Amino acid sequence: MSKLYFRYAAMNAGKSTNLLQAAYNYEERGMRVRLFTAALDNRTGVGVIGSRLGLQRQVETFGPETEFSLEGLGEGIACVLIDEAQFLTHEQVQQLHRLAHRGGPPVLCYGLRSDFRGAAFPGSAALLTLADDLEEMKTICACARKASMNLRVDGEGRRVKEGEQVVIGGNERYRAVCPSCFYAEDDDEVPAPGLFG
Amino acid sequence: MSKLYFRYAAMNAGKSTNLLQAAYNYEERGMRVRLFTAALDNRTGVGVIGSRLGLQRQVETFGPETEFSLEGLGEGIACVLIDEAQFLTHEQVQQLHRLAHRGGPPVLCYGLRSDFRGAAFPGSAALLTLADDLEEMKTICACARKASMNLRVDGEGRRVKEGEQVVIGGNERYRAVCPSCFYAEDDDEVPAPGLFG
Amino acid sequence: MSKLYFRYAAMNAGKSTNLLQAAYNYEERGMRVRLFTAALDNRTGVGVIGSRLGLQRQVETFGPETEFSLEGLGEGIACVLIDEAQFLTHEQVQQLHRLAHRGGPPVLCYGLRSDFRGAAFPGSAALLTLADDLEEMKTICACARKASMNLRVDGEGRRVKEGEQVVIGGNERYRAVCPSCFYAEDDDEVPAPGLFG
Amino acid sequence: MSKLYFRYAAMNAGKSTNLLQAAYNYEERGMRVRLFTAALDNRTGVGVIGSRLGLQRQVETFGPETEFSLEGLGEGIACVLIDEAQFLTHEQVQQLHRLAHRGGPPVLCYGLRSDFRGAAFPGSAALLTLADDLEEMKTICACARKASMNLRVDGEGRRVKEGEQVVIGGNERYRAVCPSCFYAEDDDEVPAPGLFG
Repeated sequence: MSKLYFRYAAMNAGKSTNLLQAAYNYEERGMRVRLFTAALDNRTGVGVIGSRLGLQRQVETFGPETEFSLEGLGEGIACVLIDEAQFLTHEQVQQLHRLAHRGGPPVLCYGLRSDFRGAAFPGSAALLTLADDLEEMKTICACARKASMNLRVDGEGRRVKEGEQVVIGGNERYRAVCPSCFYAEDDDEVPAPGLFG
Repeated sequence: MSKLYFRYAAMNAGKSTNLLQAAYNYEERGMRVRLFTAALDNRTGVGVIGSRLGLQRQVETFGPETEFSLEGLGEGIACVLIDEAQFLTHEQVQQLHRLAHRGGPPVLCYGLRSDFRGAAFPGSAALLTLADDLEEMKTICACARKASMNLRVDGEGRRVKEGEQVVIGGNERYRAVCPSCFYAEDDDEVPAPGLFG
Repeated sequence: MSKLYFRYAAMNAGKSTNLLQAAYNYEERGMRVRLFTAALDNRTGVGVIGSRLGLQRQVETFGPETEFSLEGLGEGIACVLIDEAQFLTHEQVQQLHRLAHRGGPPVLCYGLRSDFRGAAFPGSAALLTLADDLEEMKTICACARKASMNLRVDGEGRRVKEGEQVVIGGNERYRAVCPSCFYAEDDDEVPAPGLFG
Repeated sequence: MSKLYFRYAAMNAGKSTNLLQAAYNYEERGMRVRLFTAALDNRTGVGVIGSRLGLQRQVETFGPETEFSLEGLGEGIACVLIDEAQFLTHEQVQQLHRLAHRGGPPVLCYGLRSDFRGAAFPGSAALLTLADDLEEMKTICACARKASMNLRVDGEGRRVKEGEQVVIGGNERYRAVCPSCFYAEDDDEVPAPGLFG
């Protein structure tokens, strides 16, 4: 029985590099894979998985209407690899989970875990709930601790705490930070004396 | 800096045993802990953490109104342990995450990952999104594979696929199963030819 | 294909409790298991797996001459569980690895990782090299960090740094500590200016 | 307190790619790292970490005489990364473990876990015993299962089961395989009826 894997991380941990390496490992052994990324215009273009180390590959895209099934997958596929998996719908994650466990190949999904508010992306929430194997890919905060959260900063470098989950074409940037830095600037607020139990 | 841990599993994997062992490990070294479980009437009574191996312990309870804060926690606590953590609210999980990373002790949460429909519990969804350390506790399906899902069966032993997430006082029972068994009985449905990309 | 698992820890992390829970999980589903511990006189007696939480169970024993094979295992065994697995020989670990991968059931080994000098036990060295799944069971140092090493102290509470790996019938005791505490008392030594490359 | 990490794998899993990505993640945030590989002539030359995806980087080398210490490391190093870590000595691994836990930066070691006979390399044995964090990097066997072992084949493609752990300048090649394939060809041997307990 195959498994559904979710390799999650904050921004800029090396998810795409890892995905391209996994695809290479299959193809080097003469096996066929199918690769997908979200049909959004990202830093490397539509339908391109690009790594900050300079690796690039043109792949198929998925949108909210894509259906993942054994029939659609075709014969002889050894692995399905999906980048930007935070944009999958809950239903698509269920399709992929079922596909792996009802006769299909393993499915490797790579994506962000949480957004700039600390809330889950829909695809990540479903993958964290259903995937058979969860693996965190580590990166580092500017303070040298492990980064697991993402900050959004505006064009002037100020932190943004409200807004849409995804902004297309703006000046926003993101920074991977540790939880301690993520919560730091709230600390001038006087905390209410919690009841705790 | 302390961490927020989430140890998740399907039904009957041994979560409560593991929690009681962790509390024992602290107390044996002369450290103080605080233990909580959800304020629901479960198989061992309100405010009791009970293990199928026969271990039991009276603990504090939490409800949706409980606030977790450093002030409420008190001085000298080496660890906070929470059973039935799937019933925490998203806000409570954020309080615990912040508490661990802004000067408090480690927080160990134990809970179910998904319900009988394969959907997340609110506390689990938040913990899977925020916890610094995710650890799956394994148990087995009747088919001998790893069980990660839960089935609900009614008083006559028939599988139930719809209904409330939590039923108090009914005849329902739960069974931990692997994804392959979880999806098995749907297979007389003719699957629609998915587009897959 | 089944797997060979190694769940390792420092002293007093709860290994035996976890093993007894895993056996219970199988038996509760009507499956048969075989349990082993090393044929040494330990705190709970020969052939007894005992947990500090008060759980106990009489089991089979293994010594250096025991051979593990599919034939010897018998029909219908769903799982093999082995406590004190640090005392297995390298050859026995190979037998168990082969057994799991050539048609046998899963094998769950529990044991110490390193001795009071920071050196491996023979069984642990082989399991760390061959096991398909390595899982650390956590416990805590008196300083509140994760303990992964073991100290030996003599009858007067002084640390012992040399001697036999296993002492039968002495006054020695062991304490689980973090690496920082394990290395601490060496620090009055002036460290030689390492070449580092 | 920093940690010693060991990321282990069979041949051709992508260890060097992962190491180069980790170094990049630090340097992109303006932090300095030191990179090492074994002073052996490998496929990409002496003192070069090369990835099958085409990435390359000139780095420092270590040999059996290298000493790793805080003094030798120098000020302001955020991370030490070591490739081909299976060739470290036991003493060097202890130096690195101590260094991380007595005030130094994190140390990330990448290496093979076992040789073509299923025996540990010296550096891997020490890292598996001492490292604070063990992470397996996965690759696949030709049979599509997870590969965790390595086969040696001679110039004519025949499996070699005896010989030196490391051969310099020969025609041998290596193949990552799953344990089931690793043990397969022994099966025409009649297994002795094991006593099993």
